[in-house]
Amino acid sequence: MSKALQGVKVLDLTHAYNGPFCTTLLADNGADVIKIEPPQGDQCRTWGPIDTKSGESGFYAFLNRNKRGITLNLKTDKAREIFYNMVKDADVVVENFRGGVSKKLGVDYETLKKINPKIIYASGSGFGQYGPLSNRPCYDIVAQSMAGMVNLTGFPDSPPTKVGPSIADNVTGIYLCVGVLLALYNREKTGIGQSVDVAMLDTIFTLLENSIVTNTMTNEIPQRQGNIDPSIAPFDIYMSKDGYIAIGVGNDKLWTKFCKVMDRIDLLEDERYKTNDLRCKNYVPDLQNAVREWAKVRTKKDIENICAEAGIPCGPVLDMKEAIEHPQIQAREMMVHMEHPLIGEMYFQGVPIKLSKTPGSVDTPAPTLGQHNTEVYKEFGINEKDLENLRKQGII
Amino acid sequence: MSKALQGVKVLDLTHAYNGPFCTTLLADNGADVIKIEPPQGDQCRTWGPIDTKSGESGFYAFLNRNKRGITLNLKTDKAREIFYNMVKDADVVVENFRGGVSKKLGVDYETLKKINPKIIYASGSGFGQYGPLSNRPCYDIVAQSMAGMVNLTGFPDSPPTKVGPSIADNVTGIYLCVGVLLALYNREKTGIGQSVDVAMLDTIFTLLENSIVTNTMTNEIPQRQGNIDPSIAPFDIYMSKDGYIAIGVGNDKLWTKFCKVMDRIDLLEDERYKTNDLRCKNYVPDLQNAVREWAKVRTKKDIENICAEAGIPCGPVLDMKEAIEHPQIQAREMMVHMEHPLIGEMYFQGVPIKLSKTPGSVDTPAPTLGQHNTEVYKEFGINEKDLENLRKQGII
Repeated sequence: MSKALQGVKVLDLTHAYNGPFCTTLLADNGADVIKIEPPQGDQCRTWGPIDTKSGESGFYAFLNRNKRGITLNLKTDKAREIFYNMVKDADVVVENFRGGVSKKLGVDYETLKKINPKIIYASGSGFGQYGPLSNRPCYDIVAQSMAGMVNLTGFPDSPPTKVGPSIADNVTGIYLCVGVLLALYNREKTGIGQSVDVAMLDTIFTLLENSIVTNTMTNEIPQRQGNIDPSIAPFDIYMSKDGYIAIGVGNDKLWTKFCKVMDRIDLLEDERYKTNDLRCKNYVPDLQNAVREWAKVRTKKDIENICAEAGIPCGPVLDMKEAIEHPQIQAREMMVHMEHPLIGEMYFQGVPIKLSKTPGSVDTPAPTLGQHNTEVYKEFGINEKDLENLRKQGII
Repeated sequence: MSKALQGVKVLDLTHAYNGPFCTTLLADNGADVIKIEPPQGDQCRTWGPIDTKSGESGFYAFLNRNKRGITLNLKTDKAREIFYNMVKDADVVVENFRGGVSKKLGVDYETLKKINPKIIYASGSGFGQYGPLSNRPCYDIVAQSMAGMVNLTGFPDSPPTKVGPSIADNVTGIYLCVGVLLALYNREKTGIGQSVDVAMLDTIFTLLENSIVTNTMTNEIPQRQGNIDPSIAPFDIYMSKDGYIAIGVGNDKLWTKFCKVMDRIDLLEDERYKTNDLRCKNYVPDLQNAVREWAKVRTKKDIENICAEAGIPCGPVLDMKEAIEHPQIQAREMMVHMEHPLIGEMYFQGVPIKLSKTPGSVDTPAPTLGQHNTEVYKEFGINEKDLENLRKQGII
């Protein structure tokens, strides 16, 4: 079956995590993504877990599946000439250099659009392509902190808490993909290319939902509240006999059901809990304790079954192994097998966007360093002998 | 200036948060999004903050900007007939009903594609359109818990911790937008429509980066580590004289610089800290304490300036007010003003994807309930008199 982006050629200058996450989404959906690494390789080839036999990075391997890989030292004039020639035939360039670097290398949008006016040029970065901090270096933890996410996560009596995984990176990758697709669609209609600029600070900021309007409408400064939701109760994570479980009772109908399953219909008569608003105000400590008492003498499985039966949203806190093995994750093919040429059998995350006619899929493993040099450069008119010279000069 | 999705007509059956987040991205970028609410309104019209003068929801207002709003009671035959007629002229339908509901209402993909084979039908949900849990209700906290995110967030000695804001909802909205755009682009090339299925459980699962391969390659089960990164050190959040600040020292070059700015070049000679790998292993307690000692006697501003000067990624933990007012957020127009007809002057989040030729923007406020009934229904051939009858019968 064909894929949605069949025929779209992407020159991928990205490294580390946010840029590559974008090009993975493009590659999973059929774009021909040519990952261009410096001859020493993308820095994330050293990121764990490292395969003990081959020394290859599992991080690089899951993140760069479906891409072809070539090497090119963009700090040389000859490499730039080769790259410019490739740009003539490409649809999209994606990069996530630190602010100012693409210009220094001569691979910025202003330069490339002169070579190919239809090119779509996508940039992922910490702080974006303009603004007072645009040239500052950034990591995920810095973007999460400065955008307000860290202050809103964790318990009131604990320090502000970063989201465990690097969501500033991967959400930026997804938004960057949205930008590329908007530009591709528009180019079909108008014939013009354009640049796309997405910043980790901005993307985290968009995830804060009503905390922003709560501040601007009420002057209140929202604070972290652990696992409680400020506007729904009961909505919390409870300790059961054998681990933690999340339960959300979002409206009066569910509240009635929940009191019944807890065998606490007396709570339905309690004036403190008559409405969701009242339940929020009076949740701590008595109502919270009532649910805690009920949960702690039951197993996770029992609570999940009871709630599922009653139509109450509920689910256990799973660790990585349990989540990977969960029947729903399995049924949705969210884990896929892939044979890597050096690591061997791998098992990692699949494709989250399920398209009925042009489904994405994981078809090829991540490239070893320079694996597709001969194949790709040949497509751009460079023969084996020229390649040998380029190799000797350290250009590829 | 025109926008990327000019001319794309979206029938928006979504409610609450994940579906509307998707259609906001489409609307910000020029699609004509017609939000179809039951006559009693989207449930999120009751979600806080509530404007004390008008009783309108600030949540609804920021989330539904740029959309037109009509009412339609899809539980009636007449309403379905009207909706089917609208589908003939539409490009995209987006819905986030609980599994099974769209079919019961007769607005599922199988039904609609018979009316318009080119229609793109996008579904956001908790568990997806297939799999053993597909009909179960879900909230953000449940998806975060079951996908493994909650177990990876928080401190080792605290309970598993949910990400404060509802990221299962909004990231699902972004992915759903990617799906719609993939299908739109493909339709330009092939002429065929298709369905898109995105689940909160799956999308959270894709954000866990190398935790998944760490488990499948090493059998280790990654655990939450507070604000420490397992593969980089120092990479942490520290208490300064006047609040928390994040610092990330990602490689040997930065480590050398960091020891210099801390005036601790003795650490460069310490065998325990010679490589990043060793620094990770030996970070707690001595190296962590060394940075803590340095940070706690300085202000956030001093630390930020010192690190910026040295090129070390660093930034303060900001609360909601500080983030909103930050010069970078301001320079990037991540906060925009909008006059709402009932609430009055509002100030909320802007557009994170910066397109150079067809920039998205916030142009119109969220609709009041049924605000565009006359205007929109007229476009579909229903006149004022017919509307009056529909109103009387409770159909709109």
